[in-house]
Amino acid sequence: MSAIPEDLINSTVYRAEPLAGSRKIHITGSRRDLLVPMREITLSATPTLDGSEENPPLVVYDTSGPYTDNHAQIDIRQGLPALRTGWIEERGDTLTLPAPTSHYGQQRAADSSLDALRFPGHQRQPRRAHDGANVTQMHYARRGIITPEMEFVAIRENQLLEATRDNLSQQHPGENWGARIPDIITPEFVRQEIARGRAIIPANINHPELEPMIIGRNFLVKINGNLGNSALSSSIDEEVDKMIWGIRWGADTIMDLSTGKHIHETREWIIRNSPVPIGTVPLYQALEKVAGKPEELSWEVVRDTLIEQAEQGVDYFTIHAGVLLPYIPLTARRRTGIVSRGGSIMAKWCLAHHQENFLYTHFEEICAIMKAYDVAFSLGDGLRPGSIADANDAAQFGELKTLGELTQIAWRHDVQTMIEGPGHVPMHMVKENMDKQLELCGEAPFYTLGPLTTDIAPGYDHITSAIGAAMIGWFGTAMLCYVTPKEHLGLPDRNDVKEGIITYKIAAHAADLAKGHPGAQTRDNAMSKARFEFRWEDQFNIGLDPDRARAYHDETLPKAAHKSAHFCSMCGPQFCSMKISQDIREHAATLDVDHARALEEKAVEFRRQGNNLYPRS
Amino acid sequence: MSAIPEDLINSTVYRAEPLAGSRKIHITGSRRDLLVPMREITLSATPTLDGSEENPPLVVYDTSGPYTDNHAQIDIRQGLPALRTGWIEERGDTLTLPAPTSHYGQQRAADSSLDALRFPGHQRQPRRAHDGANVTQMHYARRGIITPEMEFVAIRENQLLEATRDNLSQQHPGENWGARIPDIITPEFVRQEIARGRAIIPANINHPELEPMIIGRNFLVKINGNLGNSALSSSIDEEVDKMIWGIRWGADTIMDLSTGKHIHETREWIIRNSPVPIGTVPLYQALEKVAGKPEELSWEVVRDTLIEQAEQGVDYFTIHAGVLLPYIPLTARRRTGIVSRGGSIMAKWCLAHHQENFLYTHFEEICAIMKAYDVAFSLGDGLRPGSIADANDAAQFGELKTLGELTQIAWRHDVQTMIEGPGHVPMHMVKENMDKQLELCGEAPFYTLGPLTTDIAPGYDHITSAIGAAMIGWFGTAMLCYVTPKEHLGLPDRNDVKEGIITYKIAAHAADLAKGHPGAQTRDNAMSKARFEFRWEDQFNIGLDPDRARAYHDETLPKAAHKSAHFCSMCGPQFCSMKISQDIREHAATLDVDHARALEEKAVEFRRQGNNLYPRS
Repeated sequence: MSAIPEDLINSTVYRAEPLAGSRKIHITGSRRDLLVPMREITLSATPTLDGSEENPPLVVYDTSGPYTDNHAQIDIRQGLPALRTGWIEERGDTLTLPAPTSHYGQQRAADSSLDALRFPGHQRQPRRAHDGANVTQMHYARRGIITPEMEFVAIRENQLLEATRDNLSQQHPGENWGARIPDIITPEFVRQEIARGRAIIPANINHPELEPMIIGRNFLVKINGNLGNSALSSSIDEEVDKMIWGIRWGADTIMDLSTGKHIHETREWIIRNSPVPIGTVPLYQALEKVAGKPEELSWEVVRDTLIEQAEQGVDYFTIHAGVLLPYIPLTARRRTGIVSRGGSIMAKWCLAHHQENFLYTHFEEICAIMKAYDVAFSLGDGLRPGSIADANDAAQFGELKTLGELTQIAWRHDVQTMIEGPGHVPMHMVKENMDKQLELCGEAPFYTLGPLTTDIAPGYDHITSAIGAAMIGWFGTAMLCYVTPKEHLGLPDRNDVKEGIITYKIAAHAADLAKGHPGAQTRDNAMSKARFEFRWEDQFNIGLDPDRARAYHDETLPKAAHKSAHFCSMCGPQFCSMKISQDIREHAATLDVDHARALEEKAVEFRRQGNNLYPRS
Repeated sequence: MSAIPEDLINSTVYRAEPLAGSRKIHITGSRRDLLVPMREITLSATPTLDGSEENPPLVVYDTSGPYTDNHAQIDIRQGLPALRTGWIEERGDTLTLPAPTSHYGQQRAADSSLDALRFPGHQRQPRRAHDGANVTQMHYARRGIITPEMEFVAIRENQLLEATRDNLSQQHPGENWGARIPDIITPEFVRQEIARGRAIIPANINHPELEPMIIGRNFLVKINGNLGNSALSSSIDEEVDKMIWGIRWGADTIMDLSTGKHIHETREWIIRNSPVPIGTVPLYQALEKVAGKPEELSWEVVRDTLIEQAEQGVDYFTIHAGVLLPYIPLTARRRTGIVSRGGSIMAKWCLAHHQENFLYTHFEEICAIMKAYDVAFSLGDGLRPGSIADANDAAQFGELKTLGELTQIAWRHDVQTMIEGPGHVPMHMVKENMDKQLELCGEAPFYTLGPLTTDIAPGYDHITSAIGAAMIGWFGTAMLCYVTPKEHLGLPDRNDVKEGIITYKIAAHAADLAKGHPGAQTRDNAMSKARFEFRWEDQFNIGLDPDRARAYHDETLPKAAHKSAHFCSMCGPQFCSMKISQDIREHAATLDVDHARALEEKAVEFRRQGNNLYPRS
């Protein structure tokens, strides 16, 4: 692997580009260093008989960080500015370490052969809690403290909807299955939800570049995008590029699942340039350290890896502590056994040693590490079903029960916790997953992979899984882990990442709508108004992917004039149903009042008769 | 437009190609001319310690007609063989007409300037019921007659699952919301469902090329693909090509929504080459006949169009007879008014004339036409919502009630009937659509467009709608009308047609699984077994799109040897969770029985203790 940085610089040209029709805005909170980014979409005016009527700009949630801010200075080699350093320092509960405290971190730092690969920007000294201190957002929340992070996410979740409150009455009430979503998210509400364990703000003190976000059933449904190189392909620059590309299109968090060489160095590049939380499965790196032999893993190797990654700034760890020895025989008769990588690693270790999972037996020691850096748990579902046939079986639900018990332990340590979920589940069995998770895990946020609702469509598993993801998001899942079209077949490239992210934005938003999340329908309403008024540019820009919408429209109607045409390629210029519909509205408006009333009376009478022109004989 | 036929011949090369790994088989029914096509996917053997274990071939439902049969002679200029002519003739209730009886049909036949465009194959004489006769499948069913068409669909629906009945116990029971799906579909069951109105076999006596299929909530969920040229683009050869391409990937029916010139000639080419039912919206063509001016439409023009199309062989007509004058004011305050083309045409006509919808006032005359050719009704939802905001409103449900009343009238004439449904509906309001349709329309098959579960993703509306389609299919919708990525933006090209069809096959199959349709999980189970055993070629071939699955796999692992590799690009050769899982299974198999029992006992004891290693203090 050659020195990548030069290539990276060359490929950053697009990165300071806002999305089409959009600009970055910042809302200032209660302090001057609390600037919450949002994306504002400019809309054109509606032509009316006597001039035109303005359409207010549409503000949407924005995960893309400075990369879409044309006022920002982007330098991948320097990393992002450290927004949170002041907040962390003023809490006075951490110290900066002179050097990494993990053996591996020290070893890599000392290895000059890695210099060419190493992130060249600010070499941040790792930070850790003072001995005995607990620096988690949950710990602060439980002590009644509203942190800047909590205020930040409150402002962010509202999407400026306070300013357009009319919209709240202009949407369907939804069915939220017991969620309790207030009309306006206050910092105090955020604090309560964090204290209760019903939401988390993944925000490692060593990731000060982070723009905080919240994951919980009473907030907007979030999505995660996975990336990572493997032993077979891809390099650091590709992974950094995919991260930036993923957040451009809406990834709320990114998991770095790298399994190849240089995992440590790749991660450093990613974290230093990421405005969103980064999650990992530390077991993957630990396995590399023992040459890929699960039976040679040990608590010591994993412990050192947790500290190494925590000091780099990873915001949440997938920990497969629920794969217990007694559950393993339950998977032997499954159609697809254990499909989780972490799950199968731990299962192999357990069987090889005839001992209980060391992540389980050392769980409280893991908690101690988590709270020293504020790394959140993502308790891994190592026994999730890998096929429709294996859905909701004894192994899966046995593990879920254990994850619920581990959640209680984590909460005793004030460690933020979410729970990972399946997998492959037919539609009619999706809700049982959510219901059991709520019951067994005390409403800790659920974080599911899909689920895929059929096994038969390799190449289209973003779609098979978006169906399950939308449903489980509606039922209460807080974050949806994307699936790309390459699932089961290969590693996602840049196009797959975008396809997966947009697909999951659809699932998450469909879930918000169905939950009746306050203000969720604002964007749909703006789109529908633009559609009805033939404001084509606005339609493109309001959508999740303005570039594709415009390109598709251009295929049939490429001319600029067509962007203001009162027709589209479906029906052609001679006839358009929307146009007729507008005529009807205008026609109705020009009818005198008496006539309109007569029509309505006729309608009432007609309905009274049972709408029946042909009475049954 | 030039003479198209030469181009067509040139582009038919691919059409006699079976799908990868597949061959066409035919199951013979009770008579020698009753040959039901299916697709058989050959599977490779599973390697075992002492040799290998055969995997029986997988039989799947096949909509592709002779175009995937490498024994078939394909000549687009001649059309398909007329399978059903004998069945129709032996019923002795029809006459062949010396010439088309519609004015327009006669006029087109006499116009020599159309010769170059005209379908050059067999000029079939139109057939019609004897005076006073009723030739609908419903009429036969109600008189206790099991037609060859009914037997054909019974065999087709079973997909040879009688031969692999073990599979029936190897699937989740499902939740079918009151459907009554027997383990094996018998011809008598088909007859009962048709007689009851709960299912239809769209099969015009003038479409003898048809391979019959059935649409009903107690059968496999079906999908429809739309195509059609417009005033702005596309020509006859492209539309015929899209039809053949659509059925290759699984379209159960095709709607020809052409609106440009030469609608009559395009349709002839399509029907003569289509093994699946063809649906149309006759109003579209009628509108062309009055120069695109809705107010100039009349019952006479539409009547002549119905006869013209019935004599060509259209199998079902969308008839917007439920758009009643009193409902129109209910749409004035909608966010997107009337978005159905047919709906807005009729609304405009009603307002212009201040008269009730002539399709409604002439409904019994329409029934008389339908039963003379066995054209099925697809009662159009002209007032379906075009935005999330307008979902499930008074206009929509008012029309649905009227459609229910019209269904009763159609059934009094023994005319087969299905009901069209929305549209744009958020997830939590989808089920209400199904429940109301079942209640108001007496279980006549529901046929929905999506519904789209959000408005904000132009360019991805195949996905926004697949979510709603899968759900409403699960709840009982019998056929799902596809939505392509171009929806709202342009006309679908060949790639869009395939993307839409595969997406909707996913939705329909996910629905079958969730309903617990007997045998539906067989294909998923075969896929999962192939996955677990690293039979890569089988995974590609079992999937809905073998070509894409193989291409995606090739991107990372192009070599032939990788197709039998016990790893994939996600984890690389060093480590694979499926591989470990297999090891676990083998390990478990080699444990002596006592040891296995001891492990299980330990598991039981552990669960009895509440799986708790850390008892709460």
